[in-house]
Amino acid sequence: LQKRKLVDHHAPNASTGIVNGRSSNVLNWDDTRYSWAYPMYKTMLANFWIPSEINMSNDLKQWPELSAQEQASFKKIIGLLAFLDSIQTDYSGKVADYLTDSSVSALMQVLAFQEVVHNQSYSYVLSTLVDQSEQERIFEYWKHDEILMERNQFITDGYEEFANEPSIDKFLKSVVYDVVLEGLFFYAGFAFFYNLARNQKMVSTSTMINYINRDEQIHVNLFAHIFKETLNENPQLDREWYEDFVTTTFKEAVDLEIKWAHHIIGNEFPGIPIDDLEDYIRFIANKRCKLMGADKPYPEYAENPLKWIRAYQEVDEGKSDFFEQKSRQYTKVSEDNGFDDL
Amino acid sequence: LQKRKLVDHHAPNASTGIVNGRSSNVLNWDDTRYSWAYPMYKTMLANFWIPSEINMSNDLKQWPELSAQEQASFKKIIGLLAFLDSIQTDYSGKVADYLTDSSVSALMQVLAFQEVVHNQSYSYVLSTLVDQSEQERIFEYWKHDEILMERNQFITDGYEEFANEPSIDKFLKSVVYDVVLEGLFFYAGFAFFYNLARNQKMVSTSTMINYINRDEQIHVNLFAHIFKETLNENPQLDREWYEDFVTTTFKEAVDLEIKWAHHIIGNEFPGIPIDDLEDYIRFIANKRCKLMGADKPYPEYAENPLKWIRAYQEVDEGKSDFFEQKSRQYTKVSEDNGFDDL
Ligand SMILES: [Ca+2]
Ligand SMILES: [Ca+2]
Repeated sequence: LQKRKLVDHHAPNASTGIVNGRSSNVLNWDDTRYSWAYPMYKTMLANFWIPSEINMSNDLKQWPELSAQEQASFKKIIGLLAFLDSIQTDYSGKVADYLTDSSVSALMQVLAFQEVVHNQSYSYVLSTLVDQSEQERIFEYWKHDEILMERNQFITDGYEEFANEPSIDKFLKSVVYDVVLEGLFFYAGFAFFYNLARNQKMVSTSTMINYINRDEQIHVNLFAHIFKETLNENPQLDREWYEDFVTTTFKEAVDLEIKWAHHIIGNEFPGIPIDDLEDYIRFIANKRCKLMGADKPYPEYAENPLKWIRAYQEVDEGKSDFFEQKSRQYTKVSEDNGFDDL
Repeated sequence: LQKRKLVDHHAPNASTGIVNGRSSNVLNWDDTRYSWAYPMYKTMLANFWIPSEINMSNDLKQWPELSAQEQASFKKIIGLLAFLDSIQTDYSGKVADYLTDSSVSALMQVLAFQEVVHNQSYSYVLSTLVDQSEQERIFEYWKHDEILMERNQFITDGYEEFANEPSIDKFLKSVVYDVVLEGLFFYAGFAFFYNLARNQKMVSTSTMINYINRDEQIHVNLFAHIFKETLNENPQLDREWYEDFVTTTFKEAVDLEIKWAHHIIGNEFPGIPIDDLEDYIRFIANKRCKLMGADKPYPEYAENPLKWIRAYQEVDEGKSDFFEQKSRQYTKVSEDNGFDDL
């Protein structure tokens, strides 16, 4: 892959391709190659939020009342999210270097910015609930927890292969690992927080998780666009092979996510029976594969078994009153924000 | 320079250095190396704004009433800004790759995000005032205007030297070019817009310019920190040599900025006499060099000759009523946002 040039005097402002294309690198939002880019940009801006403005006082009061198991899972999931969003910031920067369309590269910069905000929310939640030394321990779980390490390795291997050999092949594969990370590996953890909120526990934290979830939906859409445009624009690539790669990679990812779900949730929380959670993970994997244009790995799992979870990401649509913060103060535009289903 | 690793299992979360250091790459905002990083991050978030929410109807009404010379300079300056902010987005991504502190690298991602927003504002202003084909022409001025090309080249040469040979030497030099771009090369253009606003013309556009100005102040501070920390942490470098480089580079930059000021402003606008504008440019250059820890290139220019201009960037302090949009709706925190003087 060719890196995007700092400036190309002989290229048009609207690019000639998503990778290995040409572009002056001057960004005019009204003169871009892909019709989906500017609406996505506006949605991302509309989603802006500042973690430290969310009032954590109720969560702080409830924290000591959580069961030991609830606290342990809460901390493990935050530790996981902090790791994943950190490497995600890094990976998105690497991807941006090779996107030869300056508007898509700009979207990647907005995405990276959002990951930074997500990381602030994990620090903010922990600094409210636990002392500094425990916070630092939680931010190091990823170094010691073996189940966590195994699934993190799955992602980082894919990312590092691309970093070490930035070919179009490794690029496309890394995008699939990205969609696994942003579109699947967060979801057992999200379910845990939404289940707490359903029981009127730790609602402010869950609100932040919901904002993060909302961002991640758009990130998944962005990477799916990049994946499909790259295949469209490079007919020399074996499309079917890459689509199969999506499906098989998601199958492996589902096994890892289920293992993790047993580890952090298991049969400890009656609101999320582990069997339903497993099926939910397969259901999500199907959705992601379909979005990427690939076959569903589990076509028999066509329904979301955790029906109640929908309400937790429909705050924007005014259908939910589960959350304290009913109005999304930063959300000012009315476009569809990419949220269809969890 | 070593690139930051995607993940380093044996390194601490708080880094060991700004470049060529070690860090796990996991970002915990409460466990970082530099005390200035988190306050700067919070200020950057507090500065958030969405260009398309600014009402342009008055500007649209006034636009045909501007003189031909006012319109021409207006368009040339927007064309310049669009080019500079575009390459700035790109450069900041390249810098981020080599910052081995994950919080400073995160700040660079926030900076890149802000540049993207700035570019949206140029597109938004032009799409309001001129037709699509003229907008596209303005976004291509940088390809044809010779005075513009000369000063752009000055920056892109410094950036490209770093991109082609990412050594600590080229890195430090590129940071100096960055501070020239963000801290000097915008300022004749900014003065033009503030002078329009002083005459109650194009106030919405000037408000956006003011928001951009506010962001740029922080960007300059960020790069000055990076410059000084890099010198502090690498005593093998000849500090004095680099400080001299700052002063001599700014002298060259002042010559180019003055040439540009004659080109776009000259003696056409009574509110900004060209002699005062020249002195203002030297005054700004002094401020930037001082911030970088270097000698002032023009120690005899100790006073801002455009006194009136201060009011145009003090909206936050409630001292100004020149702007339509008096309240900064997105600015929610009260910390000093890095604005001292233009
Ligand atoms: Ca993400
Ligand atoms: Ca800037």
